[in-house]
Amino acid sequence: MSKFAVLGYGVVGSGVVELFYTNRDSITSKAGQSMDIKYILDIRDFPNSPYEDKFVKSIETILSDDEVTAVAECMGGVHPAYEFVKACLEKGKSVSTSNKQLVAEKGAELLKVAKEHHCNFFFEASVGGAIPIIRPLHKCLAANEITEVAGILNGTTNFILTKMINEHMEFETALAMAQELGYAEKDPTADVEGDDACRKICIISSLVYGKHVYPNSVYTKGITDISLDDVKYAQKWGGAIKLIAYVKKLDNGKIIPLVCPMLVSNENLIAHVDDVFNAVMVCGNGIDKTLFYGRGAGKLPTASAVLGDIINEVQHSETVLSQYWEDTNSTDFIADYSEFTAQMYFRIKGSNTLVPEGAETICTDDDDYTVFITKPMSIADSERLCASIAENNGMVVSTIPVLDIK
Amino acid sequence: MSKFAVLGYGVVGSGVVELFYTNRDSITSKAGQSMDIKYILDIRDFPNSPYEDKFVKSIETILSDDEVTAVAECMGGVHPAYEFVKACLEKGKSVSTSNKQLVAEKGAELLKVAKEHHCNFFFEASVGGAIPIIRPLHKCLAANEITEVAGILNGTTNFILTKMINEHMEFETALAMAQELGYAEKDPTADVEGDDACRKICIISSLVYGKHVYPNSVYTKGITDISLDDVKYAQKWGGAIKLIAYVKKLDNGKIIPLVCPMLVSNENLIAHVDDVFNAVMVCGNGIDKTLFYGRGAGKLPTASAVLGDIINEVQHSETVLSQYWEDTNSTDFIADYSEFTAQMYFRIKGSNTLVPEGAETICTDDDDYTVFITKPMSIADSERLCASIAENNGMVVSTIPVLDIK
Repeated sequence: MSKFAVLGYGVVGSGVVELFYTNRDSITSKAGQSMDIKYILDIRDFPNSPYEDKFVKSIETILSDDEVTAVAECMGGVHPAYEFVKACLEKGKSVSTSNKQLVAEKGAELLKVAKEHHCNFFFEASVGGAIPIIRPLHKCLAANEITEVAGILNGTTNFILTKMINEHMEFETALAMAQELGYAEKDPTADVEGDDACRKICIISSLVYGKHVYPNSVYTKGITDISLDDVKYAQKWGGAIKLIAYVKKLDNGKIIPLVCPMLVSNENLIAHVDDVFNAVMVCGNGIDKTLFYGRGAGKLPTASAVLGDIINEVQHSETVLSQYWEDTNSTDFIADYSEFTAQMYFRIKGSNTLVPEGAETICTDDDDYTVFITKPMSIADSERLCASIAENNGMVVSTIPVLDIK
Repeated sequence: MSKFAVLGYGVVGSGVVELFYTNRDSITSKAGQSMDIKYILDIRDFPNSPYEDKFVKSIETILSDDEVTAVAECMGGVHPAYEFVKACLEKGKSVSTSNKQLVAEKGAELLKVAKEHHCNFFFEASVGGAIPIIRPLHKCLAANEITEVAGILNGTTNFILTKMINEHMEFETALAMAQELGYAEKDPTADVEGDDACRKICIISSLVYGKHVYPNSVYTKGITDISLDDVKYAQKWGGAIKLIAYVKKLDNGKIIPLVCPMLVSNENLIAHVDDVFNAVMVCGNGIDKTLFYGRGAGKLPTASAVLGDIINEVQHSETVLSQYWEDTNSTDFIADYSEFTAQMYFRIKGSNTLVPEGAETICTDDDDYTVFITKPMSIADSERLCASIAENNGMVVSTIPVLDIK
């Protein structure tokens, strides 16, 4: 009999408990041994819960119980999740977390603590919810040099953009609808400004390239500037505007992680990923490209990923050394955003603007705007182009990079 | 230093060797120890190969060398792959195979031999080429009851259908093009008649439901009957015809595995999977649905999956008990195809046919055909409907089930 504890009985934590007891027979069969939840940690009372006898209020109860070999951390936020997780790992209890903020801020340190104490720090649920991405990246695709990863890693913004694209709904209206449906928080900043997607691309970048990438070293731009005009011109071009979390390895060995809206061609499946769904495309020198798609959030989908890690821990309790990265205390391996190279979408006020050589025009005879897509250029060069357009009395309303994976 | 052998130096085997030496540094780093290929088994001579000194002609050389702890089987076909793989496993050497025919025919037995000899029989490469699907199914999604799996598992037929859909090319022309491009064999039977996809859904069904599903117990229909008319009416309806490999668990506990063309709504990403790409959608009671997409065949993509398994073996040499299914010597757990229930697409010669109640008409005023989609019905009921249409002098030209996952 293997026993684990659940930290936090919010949306994800209660999902872990519900999914475990719903599927307990098949989970036991897959784990190769009987399993149960011994404790649920929450400061609140749940007097009518069928699991009433499992609730505890102090982490010490869990830490001091040697029978508990694994812990599912579903509290969210950095504190006290960090202190609790670290203490569990120091006791040799493996931890599975859905907490992307914790992994993005403290991942390298917690992986080190886990390694030192011969246990595991798992975080499949921290990126892409139900989508298996962490384990496939470091296990199944281990024979590849990963060249690029691009994904839709925030369901809230994808829901809003889908409404803007398919129903030509204004940003504010779509956001209000997302809030009403429970897809967006009352304060939607972390989602719409790209911070949530940033944490996830930090985790992927760290895992793929072996060095901790902190959120503050990642260029991050959200979707608040995206207008219906841009959405419509993107459709005219044959694609969709999506909030893309992205990382690429450059020829000089540095990586560029970033989060920003991008134009995605309809030839790329990512353009067809709608509503709250997430998708991650991984490019490597063996696989060419592969894509993982599913629900990026939600009670049971996230619980599925947390529990998958717990089952894996019960099956194989040896330390997973491969899932590890270093804290280099440096950002030397991260290239500046200005070095990022892509075709660029330009929307310019007025129809009398000169279109640069080699650009693909989406619209030149429109009364209001000249819209075109340049040949690939660096962000630095695109900023110089903006300046030169301004010198010629043009007004650049928006510039958006084009995702170069088809 | 960990050493492995490669059996067969055809497309996949040579890909394994090429990808290993291209990425050897990063592979070594991920494996946690130095690795090398000690032998390549092939009956042919490769006098100018840079790996000339590694070629051997007898499996005995590999079997008797204790330094070889893992073997990549890339020969294809059941014999002598089966005898070689079995002998390797009996010597305690773990095997990773790309050979779907071998796994579909002999999987249960080889998994048993591996278990008895405390080694692993891996087969990530046997389904979906580069796409991580086997490990995610039995590891990451272990907390779920898997309710349905539906996928495009044959690249050749998907290429042909894509040409028919996007360019309205006739089947024969598209097949000839696939042959010219090397996507289809000279004798394309195994692909176009669905046998290749059948082997893959057998492997997935066995893994998911724990009992070996043999190819001869799976209803299998290929794409040779699909006409451009059906393709066009499917587009008019808002979807695409795809060759779908499918398995579902019924309420009575039985499973229905099958391979046949299906109408897929454009709302499902599978409808947008084009050319030689494969995709697998997995539905479960935690995840809702998740999709895996990538190259289903080819030298380096398949090699990536074979090598991923080899690296995993080097990292963790313990037996992977969870990846296991039984040979029940029975088909009692497999429901008859006639019990499969779906909306059905009907194309009927003549425009004066009565459309059944509740059906969605795609076309009634066409000179040539009446086309509609029924409410969900069993295959048995759809056959009764066909008979009653015939009694009323209608001629059913085609019936195609609709995939019910959106």
